[in-house]
Amino acid sequence: MAARLPTEPPRGMRDILPAEADLRDAAAETVLTVYRRYGFRRIETPALESLQLLTGGGGGENEKLIFKVLKRGEKLDLGAAVTEADLADLGLRFDLTVPLARYYAHNHAKLPDPLKAVQIGPVWRAERPQRGRYRQFTQCDIDILGVASEIAEIELILATTEALDALGLDGLTVRINDRRLLAAMATWCGFDPARHASVFITLDKWDKLSPSEIRQELEQAGHPPPAVVRMMELYGRASPQRSLSAMRSQLGTSSAEGAFAALSRIVHTVEAAAGGRFRIDFDPTLARGMGYYTGPIFEISSSRFAAGSLAGGGRYDNMIGELLARDVPATGFSIGFERVVDLLSKMQGGTARGDKRIALLFEESTPDLGGVLAAAQALRAQGYLVALERQARNAGAQRAALEKQGYDGVATVGSGGLANLQWFAERALRQSGGRE
Amino acid sequence: MAARLPTEPPRGMRDILPAEADLRDAAAETVLTVYRRYGFRRIETPALESLQLLTGGGGGENEKLIFKVLKRGEKLDLGAAVTEADLADLGLRFDLTVPLARYYAHNHAKLPDPLKAVQIGPVWRAERPQRGRYRQFTQCDIDILGVASEIAEIELILATTEALDALGLDGLTVRINDRRLLAAMATWCGFDPARHASVFITLDKWDKLSPSEIRQELEQAGHPPPAVVRMMELYGRASPQRSLSAMRSQLGTSSAEGAFAALSRIVHTVEAAAGGRFRIDFDPTLARGMGYYTGPIFEISSSRFAAGSLAGGGRYDNMIGELLARDVPATGFSIGFERVVDLLSKMQGGTARGDKRIALLFEESTPDLGGVLAAAQALRAQGYLVALERQARNAGAQRAALEKQGYDGVATVGSGGLANLQWFAERALRQSGGRE
Repeated sequence: MAARLPTEPPRGMRDILPAEADLRDAAAETVLTVYRRYGFRRIETPALESLQLLTGGGGGENEKLIFKVLKRGEKLDLGAAVTEADLADLGLRFDLTVPLARYYAHNHAKLPDPLKAVQIGPVWRAERPQRGRYRQFTQCDIDILGVASEIAEIELILATTEALDALGLDGLTVRINDRRLLAAMATWCGFDPARHASVFITLDKWDKLSPSEIRQELEQAGHPPPAVVRMMELYGRASPQRSLSAMRSQLGTSSAEGAFAALSRIVHTVEAAAGGRFRIDFDPTLARGMGYYTGPIFEISSSRFAAGSLAGGGRYDNMIGELLARDVPATGFSIGFERVVDLLSKMQGGTARGDKRIALLFEESTPDLGGVLAAAQALRAQGYLVALERQARNAGAQRAALEKQGYDGVATVGSGGLANLQWFAERALRQSGGRE
Repeated sequence: MAARLPTEPPRGMRDILPAEADLRDAAAETVLTVYRRYGFRRIETPALESLQLLTGGGGGENEKLIFKVLKRGEKLDLGAAVTEADLADLGLRFDLTVPLARYYAHNHAKLPDPLKAVQIGPVWRAERPQRGRYRQFTQCDIDILGVASEIAEIELILATTEALDALGLDGLTVRINDRRLLAAMATWCGFDPARHASVFITLDKWDKLSPSEIRQELEQAGHPPPAVVRMMELYGRASPQRSLSAMRSQLGTSSAEGAFAALSRIVHTVEAAAGGRFRIDFDPTLARGMGYYTGPIFEISSSRFAAGSLAGGGRYDNMIGELLARDVPATGFSIGFERVVDLLSKMQGGTARGDKRIALLFEESTPDLGGVLAAAQALRAQGYLVALERQARNAGAQRAALEKQGYDGVATVGSGGLANLQWFAERALRQSGGRE
């Protein structure tokens, strides 16, 4: 290696320093503990998948952002290569849902039925780097495969609100809608069924744009003006959070009857189970981006953090059937882990761990290194996190640096021996003012 | 997606099923808990690094096994590409040591000094797949950067033996040697200094080959016959685990004096601290593969698993200096996580978690879904892992399947109500025979 090798992480990626790593670990542990209580089991898939799978249609826009891996050995023929497909056979996963579908199709005979899976791990997208958005980031997903009834959505919502609550992210509101209802609405208004997706993308901006901007965007997209007028009337008459029954009577007993029944059962059951811990609102403007959703869709936001949502998900009953010979009903909920960690670091401004950390300083030339080690071991056996460090010449600067690193106490193992270990720990913590 | 998309994971990679995921999580938690007590802090680096860094010389043979990532956008010019270097700019990391050196060089101003880092995460190598060896596997490394004295080696050895002990892998022996001593030995025998690495590779096989096979391999490699004879005499006179002082008097007070002093201090201090919990033996045949080691090197094996080692490491004082303007002394120890998990699964034959898992069955048509949910919530609040499942027609088969999945108890929420929740949990656990 030459001295001029770059030491930065690759563009759009980043190193995680100890304090943030502690916070991330603690957050992941909190979320996993709640999900495990709900019966979710951890599973893992490789970071790499075949490009054939990744570009198979489940990923929408994300398929354009795949980091592709060069073929190896004989498979790579540079001279004959004409397109990227000749050069690359694998790609880094861009989400955890497409790999989960493959995992289930491959392993279903060995898996519980239904499968309640929790995944937490990195995904990669070659997006243009921007503030707060990285090319490697962590997703935390729960999915229930094999349950067609709304008990799946209900459990996903209860588990995820409880996980966010456990992290201290309270004031939660769940917004819920249904893709079937969106389709019925668009049909009722008179939009071209082939262009529904474009209508939903605009509708999803209802909370960001004014009604006239929504109307303008729909008209500029070339949708039939009478359909646009009808939609604006339907949505404009009440607040976006208008009641489910009002929307139902407006659209009439149409083909979305199943969607209304499902939403009604989910909203009422979740409301009762929430006991005021969080709100659940029907939101007819909620659309969500992914094309694979087939039924109820939902997002969670917190009143403490106005912009954007903390988690989102929905039902995708058709995805696994495309890999397996039979259909498997599926619902999932994904926590925006990076967003959550970012909020937690702003709330707490430091480590989330409750451990007591002690730095035990010793002289390099100590004749009793064994005694120093024994002192550290005894404190560790009591559950303290103990770092042994050589005493620096400038003791004050060393102590200040250690306290800045988050040590609760700094104790020096002097020549007077180590008769009273407990005293070391207690003095160290007392000196630090008993930071909890 | 077409129905004929492959559903297997990529060649040499694998899916992790729930029972193994539980075991892996529990093992990682156990190891991290011990390492944290020793003052190690978790850090993370991206999975991808620049190929410039990865092929910069720190990785030895592993550099040939890099999964390389295709350039993206304008950077990729297929027409003008002649070599792989024109096509790829990033690669998946093949170990955690090269990224750590870059991480330290980039972030040192914001990091504790010394840095005690623990990393656990996947690495990738495009090796020919074989039994028990995968192209994505997990490494668990601790490293101490900034400590030149042997207290670093001592702490690494104590922490790693304690972590393996905590996993139930007892009967441990630490074998230790020093690269400086190996060099002094090879010089004393009369080997060509430029060909020492080849001597060490053969020497490392001492426990697998017979003395005559060792001699033959050295001679066939073209080393001077008198040097080979001298080495065979030196090593043949006693057992490989001959004492440090015997080797010292054999070689004389040569240039390896520092190595002998370091090894002596490490062996005696660790022996005293171990208190019979494990053995530490000087092993003059231990060589280890990586070229970057500069001082003491060590491996841990268990008497319960004869073949191979569970962990290995050593001092590499020159690596960071090649990225940073100044030298930074460094020592590391890496646990073979996949090997450890494999051994644990054979020892325990199942889940390592102590949680109580209950499946709560309900009728899909229940009029009181809220009550069912409340029952589940109450049990979860008591710390049980509770999966809600719809009752199947064949109750016996369902119960058998759930028990096979590791549920400690299965309870049915009948029409009689949920007056006594605790009773459900206790009955469920009683029926299962109180499996711990």
